[in-house]
Amino acid sequence: MVSKNQIKLITSLQQKKYRQTHQLFLAEGVKVIQELLVSNFMLEHLFVTENLFESVSSDKKTLISESDLKKISCLSTPNNCLALFKIPSDKKILLDGLVVALDEVRDPGNLGTIIRLCDWFGVKQIICSNNSVDIYNPKVVQATMGSVSRVNVVYTNLVEYLSNSKQEIFGTFMDGKNVYKEQLPQNGILVLGNEANGISKEIENLITQRLAIPRFGDLQKTESLNVATATAIFLSEFKRLQ
Amino acid sequence: MVSKNQIKLITSLQQKKYRQTHQLFLAEGVKVIQELLVSNFMLEHLFVTENLFESVSSDKKTLISESDLKKISCLSTPNNCLALFKIPSDKKILLDGLVVALDEVRDPGNLGTIIRLCDWFGVKQIICSNNSVDIYNPKVVQATMGSVSRVNVVYTNLVEYLSNSKQEIFGTFMDGKNVYKEQLPQNGILVLGNEANGISKEIENLITQRLAIPRFGDLQKTESLNVATATAIFLSEFKRLQ
Repeated sequence: MVSKNQIKLITSLQQKKYRQTHQLFLAEGVKVIQELLVSNFMLEHLFVTENLFESVSSDKKTLISESDLKKISCLSTPNNCLALFKIPSDKKILLDGLVVALDEVRDPGNLGTIIRLCDWFGVKQIICSNNSVDIYNPKVVQATMGSVSRVNVVYTNLVEYLSNSKQEIFGTFMDGKNVYKEQLPQNGILVLGNEANGISKEIENLITQRLAIPRFGDLQKTESLNVATATAIFLSEFKRLQ
Repeated sequence: MVSKNQIKLITSLQQKKYRQTHQLFLAEGVKVIQELLVSNFMLEHLFVTENLFESVSSDKKTLISESDLKKISCLSTPNNCLALFKIPSDKKILLDGLVVALDEVRDPGNLGTIIRLCDWFGVKQIICSNNSVDIYNPKVVQATMGSVSRVNVVYTNLVEYLSNSKQEIFGTFMDGKNVYKEQLPQNGILVLGNEANGISKEIENLITQRLAIPRFGDLQKTESLNVATATAIFLSEFKRLQ
């Protein structure tokens, strides 16, 4: 059984302010929860509709009905499990290899996909501007497919951070240098911008290397690439011959 | 004003069977409609809530209220315009340069993103298996951001088509050859598979070159890449030095 108070608490976690108040976030589905369980994240409680996750002790696990799961799930088609995990206390920035910085990326699916790409390409650190979408947004957690447990994501004042950085700062612009022809280093910060407006003016002034993915289609008409697909291509270029 | 019959017709077009019956599809938003208007697609009718698209003759355009637009829109936050376009009659396959073949890609957002990527990289032809998501699904049309007008998408029996093809057929597999180290040609067919199951067995047997994007993260744990981000990286590799 899930009590009314539990339902109220759990559904409130779909909003950032309540995640911050309770320092908890939601994860759904066996795959995502499994990955979080074997990571450094601390389980607060697990709700299951069948016998799953035998390693989790019974005081941390409640068997509930499918209709109860529907009441607490964020998904239109709920899975068979939902977990609450503790939000870790402030994480440090790890400057090891290439770092990805996100300047106001707002779409949860895009952030989730970028985290998954960083995981694939061995990028260990993402630095988000404070106005980027929250990593503990349930849609982000789902879209990462568990990669959220393996990439360190930190929110900060990105202008201040980049102003004080001694590293090379790469930015992606339509008029940048052809990324396919540049010698790319193993270290540095790669900045990707907002879905609609790209990199903000303040951050643009801090970029030391302007890069672009050349277009091959009709130059007059083609839209820009989506931020997640652009990230895929840039990470591939930085890593391809390492 | 939009009549009850019009509302019924237009909302029915969210389903494939009614799109096929009426040979019409929906597009929303100024950007997408603008791109379709300057393409070979034929406008059936346009609904606007304000004075837009002055070049469209008045017999093809109806000024409606925002509440009427809400009744016919597929979007949770409707735009200021919605158009019906005719589905073109059977299109021929253009074998010019690299061709992308999709084996049961089901997610509308993925197909939309792949069409946008093909447009960017100058790939003019996509061949979809008959069980792939319909290009005229409103979510696909929206996700392409207008690129749907510049890439030729054809549905066919993919097994039969590839069996009769004389071209080299590239497929993407976890155990394929490192794509970063292969000499890739300017012509050929690149096959991408279903989101959950990858390339089907029948199609796998027809692949002449197995390719993979190497992983750089934790080899044991990292999920596979999403089909749209994998497409971004493969197209980038085929085109980067052309």
